[in-house]
Amino acid sequence: MTTAHAIADTRHFVRAARQQGRRIGFVPTMGALHQGHLSLMERARRENDAVAISVFVNPTQFGPAEDFDAYPRDLDRDAALAEGVGVDLLFAPRAAAMYPDGATTYVDQAGPIVETLEGAHRPGHFRGVLTVCGKLFHIVEPDRAYFGQKDYQQVAAVAQMVRDLALPIAIVPCPIVREPDGLAMSSRNQHLDADARQQATCIHRGLQAAQACLDAGVSSAAALADVVRQTLLDAGHCTIDYVAIVHPQTLAPVDTVAEPAVALVAAHFGGTRLIDNHLLTPKG
Amino acid sequence: MTTAHAIADTRHFVRAARQQGRRIGFVPTMGALHQGHLSLMERARRENDAVAISVFVNPTQFGPAEDFDAYPRDLDRDAALAEGVGVDLLFAPRAAAMYPDGATTYVDQAGPIVETLEGAHRPGHFRGVLTVCGKLFHIVEPDRAYFGQKDYQQVAAVAQMVRDLALPIAIVPCPIVREPDGLAMSSRNQHLDADARQQATCIHRGLQAAQACLDAGVSSAAALADVVRQTLLDAGHCTIDYVAIVHPQTLAPVDTVAEPAVALVAAHFGGTRLIDNHLLTPKG
Repeated sequence: MTTAHAIADTRHFVRAARQQGRRIGFVPTMGALHQGHLSLMERARRENDAVAISVFVNPTQFGPAEDFDAYPRDLDRDAALAEGVGVDLLFAPRAAAMYPDGATTYVDQAGPIVETLEGAHRPGHFRGVLTVCGKLFHIVEPDRAYFGQKDYQQVAAVAQMVRDLALPIAIVPCPIVREPDGLAMSSRNQHLDADARQQATCIHRGLQAAQACLDAGVSSAAALADVVRQTLLDAGHCTIDYVAIVHPQTLAPVDTVAEPAVALVAAHFGGTRLIDNHLLTPKG
Repeated sequence: MTTAHAIADTRHFVRAARQQGRRIGFVPTMGALHQGHLSLMERARRENDAVAISVFVNPTQFGPAEDFDAYPRDLDRDAALAEGVGVDLLFAPRAAAMYPDGATTYVDQAGPIVETLEGAHRPGHFRGVLTVCGKLFHIVEPDRAYFGQKDYQQVAAVAQMVRDLALPIAIVPCPIVREPDGLAMSSRNQHLDADARQQATCIHRGLQAAQACLDAGVSSAAALADVVRQTLLDAGHCTIDYVAIVHPQTLAPVDTVAEPAVALVAAHFGGTRLIDNHLLTPKG
């Protein structure tokens, strides 16, 4: 595995691969790799001739009161894990390379995908995500880019960007990877103390309870959201940012779950903010 | 010459060229081609193995009260001119392909390059320019893209975008091409009636008078701008949007022209808005 810090070195590597006719799969990450990330890399490995990943804790997608400084960083550990699943190139740029002095250009979006839920709770977040993804795509020029569905709006926003701006890349959304007790894997899970770690399982329990109620004939989105909310409140010591049930593509709220709809949750557990989601699917 | 209306056909053409190792030069235009455009294509022809141009009157860079509907369009004439200078591919997309229903993503910039002068007089203009150029670059994937310096801020903003977003493209600014009497070539010149056409020569005369005053020892930017402004006013029947003398890179206003500074003009002649500029260069 090659580790590159410079944009020019990364471009050199991927252009050489492309000139050999090799297809490139790309997994952008903020590091602190876990099994969720590794599952993306393994899939990229299966579906492409070369696999590139990036490790960059992108400052522009964090709000001023968020956990940019506390976000876990361990490049040596990340590199070992990536190499273990057959990654060919790890691009770990310095912030000064991604955001040189005087940089003023950004990519942004309008509409519910970026303005509701995470967008409403994290102003500027998706502008930061789209800008850094756009730049990473220009540097790595992948054929396919792999994103985990845990960050549901992120995948939707990036896919929308790729369509709108005609980026020559296929966006591949991949299933959420969970701990045995159902907690969605996240680099932020390592901030949870033992109590909060236990309480946080309520998110997945709540989403599963909503699916069970839907299976049992409850189709009111408000009622299903209340099932999730009540499961979180019962677990105690959590602060809910939102529980929402929305159209899977447009992210517009739905009244009734007659077609598949996505239930999205954001909540704080002992100072750590977690998100998760589940595609509520009515029985056939 | 191949003419393509579909993004997929264009991508197919340029990818085939790249696989043969051919370098692609690109000239984005809004059509109504004149000798200024053709000089860009001729240069692209000399410096690359294949030349692609686009002809697209981009709606998002026109304000609601501007001349989008009146902008001249004649694709057959444009195609004949492009073929005459050796263009290989003419990409003429439909608006629905460039802005499909539900498109919400845009590229924008902050700072004086896009917020002053044209940016102040044409709100949203540069967002439209950057978004369409970003998309065209993703479709055509050129090695080099050629822009005329008449649209001084446009070239600067696009070059800034390419740097900031690490687009793998070299932006090549090219000299303004002028009519024998000095009027900068522009597709909008065809809207001028005989009187306005004659009066419009005052822009270049004013810019040249400023350079002559600088040569004669006048270095005050305010005094040099007044020379331009007075030349325009003396011609009569023109409405000045701005005359400004600014730093060539940052576009910040300068007090004294001790180093090269660019003088920029926008003015209306009989209902037609024209822009022009000149790099004021101190002797020695």
